[in-house]
Amino acid sequence: MSDRSEQQQPDPALAHFWAVVPAGGSGTRLWPLSRRSSPKFLHDLTGSGRTLIQQTVDRLSPLCQDRLLVVTGVRHAEAVEEQLPDLPPANLLIEPSPRDSMPAIGLAAAVLEQRDPEAVLGSFAADHVIVDPDQFQECVRAAVAAASDGSLVTLGIEPTYPATGFGYIEVGEADETQDSPGTISARRVTRFVEKPSREVAVDYLAGGRHRWNAGIFVVRASSLLQMLERWHPALVQGLRAIAADPDSLPTVWPQLQAIAIDHAIAEPAADAGIVKVLPAGFGWDDIGDFASLAALLEESGEHPGVRVLGPPGQVVSVDSTGVVAVSGGRTVVTLGVPDVVVIDTEDAVLVTTRERVQDVKSIVATLQRLGREDLT
Amino acid sequence: MSDRSEQQQPDPALAHFWAVVPAGGSGTRLWPLSRRSSPKFLHDLTGSGRTLIQQTVDRLSPLCQDRLLVVTGVRHAEAVEEQLPDLPPANLLIEPSPRDSMPAIGLAAAVLEQRDPEAVLGSFAADHVIVDPDQFQECVRAAVAAASDGSLVTLGIEPTYPATGFGYIEVGEADETQDSPGTISARRVTRFVEKPSREVAVDYLAGGRHRWNAGIFVVRASSLLQMLERWHPALVQGLRAIAADPDSLPTVWPQLQAIAIDHAIAEPAADAGIVKVLPAGFGWDDIGDFASLAALLEESGEHPGVRVLGPPGQVVSVDSTGVVAVSGGRTVVTLGVPDVVVIDTEDAVLVTTRERVQDVKSIVATLQRLGREDLT
Repeated sequence: MSDRSEQQQPDPALAHFWAVVPAGGSGTRLWPLSRRSSPKFLHDLTGSGRTLIQQTVDRLSPLCQDRLLVVTGVRHAEAVEEQLPDLPPANLLIEPSPRDSMPAIGLAAAVLEQRDPEAVLGSFAADHVIVDPDQFQECVRAAVAAASDGSLVTLGIEPTYPATGFGYIEVGEADETQDSPGTISARRVTRFVEKPSREVAVDYLAGGRHRWNAGIFVVRASSLLQMLERWHPALVQGLRAIAADPDSLPTVWPQLQAIAIDHAIAEPAADAGIVKVLPAGFGWDDIGDFASLAALLEESGEHPGVRVLGPPGQVVSVDSTGVVAVSGGRTVVTLGVPDVVVIDTEDAVLVTTRERVQDVKSIVATLQRLGREDLT
Repeated sequence: MSDRSEQQQPDPALAHFWAVVPAGGSGTRLWPLSRRSSPKFLHDLTGSGRTLIQQTVDRLSPLCQDRLLVVTGVRHAEAVEEQLPDLPPANLLIEPSPRDSMPAIGLAAAVLEQRDPEAVLGSFAADHVIVDPDQFQECVRAAVAAASDGSLVTLGIEPTYPATGFGYIEVGEADETQDSPGTISARRVTRFVEKPSREVAVDYLAGGRHRWNAGIFVVRASSLLQMLERWHPALVQGLRAIAADPDSLPTVWPQLQAIAIDHAIAEPAADAGIVKVLPAGFGWDDIGDFASLAALLEESGEHPGVRVLGPPGQVVSVDSTGVVAVSGGRTVVTLGVPDVVVIDTEDAVLVTTRERVQDVKSIVATLQRLGREDLT
């Protein structure tokens, strides 16, 4: 029996597994493809025909069926509903204002505590790309099993280059208490580390004890709320109040502390020795910038070195390499511009180079300063 | 009395002066601004609010009043009529197919021979830029006077750099026979020379005996036809047949030899010693490519080094120099791309560099090969 056919049948081990998809962030380094008004999770950035949030749900559905909550901002709720027509309205949690990842995932936990006291939740950002969904699903299954003892379980992505754009997970000894259902064995997390310098990243890669932190956490809802009780009692009180009385959301939410899940519970839990990590080799990327986007696109057959998002016939490259994304339907011609990045949209065209893709973020600030919020 | 107020009064010396404006060429090095379907003379490439053909007529009208003929191809006749609503229909000569400049200007001469036997014609391309119209008009007046003895008179542009994109005029001794009305004195042309190599152009500039050939010729219509009788009798016969019976155009025109005025009469006339040149310092350009276009645009105040054709607010340049032309109304953002050239139009975006502007021409051929004639 193949993995894929197994997925068609509800898996008893996953009967209480709930996927939580925080859909936030604006992806300003992908401007003008991604905008505050239309963040990257709403876009098909891989040319698959499905947007990133749709792909995220597609790869989770075999594991969770309808047990999937999306948490998004009020500005994007309508777009999310349009893109996920099968999502029951009760499974869309709407944040009145951005409060970072901990309140978003914590609210899902508080809601699940009411709906399914045995719930194990896994949080998966709406705008990440995963290359091998089968391996991903196998990992999540193992993580759900590993979370049964109350641990916070994370998936540690095997680093493939000395990335400076991701946080890292420092892996400790093998976890002897683990009740693993397969070949994937969990290890203790010693600590979470922030985005490193280049030299440090090279050391991490060589040392073999560090993994990329993809922000994927699997944990019993009750355990997550206990951790919050321990480290952020005011926050959990607010979240439970909202779960008990959704009408209190507009008044309670603005008072909640804005904090990332890493700082709120992952780091203190690692210090407390209750975080496990599973090795994840399924190919992952957060499409943080256009260089990252380019790596996900196939090289154009007609124009070697050129990677195109959109109809390949709409790009003509002469003596140029780089990435060209076309979303406006125009034809883009590049002549003698090595490593160029051209992003053509309906109302804005960005021209830059691979070297400067990190600085695209600054353009959004510049446009705001120039009074061009309409483009941000 | 200023030059300008003089222009308002018909000048008796110009009573038989006719301006002839050949409006042809496709300007493929200005793709995608200029297309075969919409060549550069139909565009406002200087941000003046007037297209190049309109500017050409504007600067000639004070000299010729209504004595102005436009010769254009059948594909562009309608656009020319729209852009020049005051042009009498009889003054628009329509070529059924391109036959280069000699048949176009020759047809005008044959038509003028019938309308005004004393006509002196001056031919001025529809897509050139002239910086100082007053000086230009003074030069043309002198050229008309110099043409009274039957000479072919050309205006020799004072070279300002060792251009390799223009032909040159080699200037001989002062013309003792000249009947000059002002301070501009004509000299004999020794010969016309083709576009030179860089080294040769440097020598020309240093030597002081060479001027740029702007393709401006002033000559009595009867003298021009005599020259054609001498060197291209079949051609002049065809042109006179068309002038006598415009209905014969569709049958006669296709049989005419396609040849440039330089080869057809200017070069043999120079050999025969009947070509004069007047020094022209009025500032001239044929906007042959985007570097040439950039030189005509003012530097953006907000973005030093950036020259914009179109609304300056539509361009945001960070760490970039170069020229950005916006005709599609979109916002163009350049980040860290020195010497970039971005040409944004409704259906196509070109990204290249100043270094490669000469090669833009090849794109049109590439697009044709790819079956994208719609963009050429």
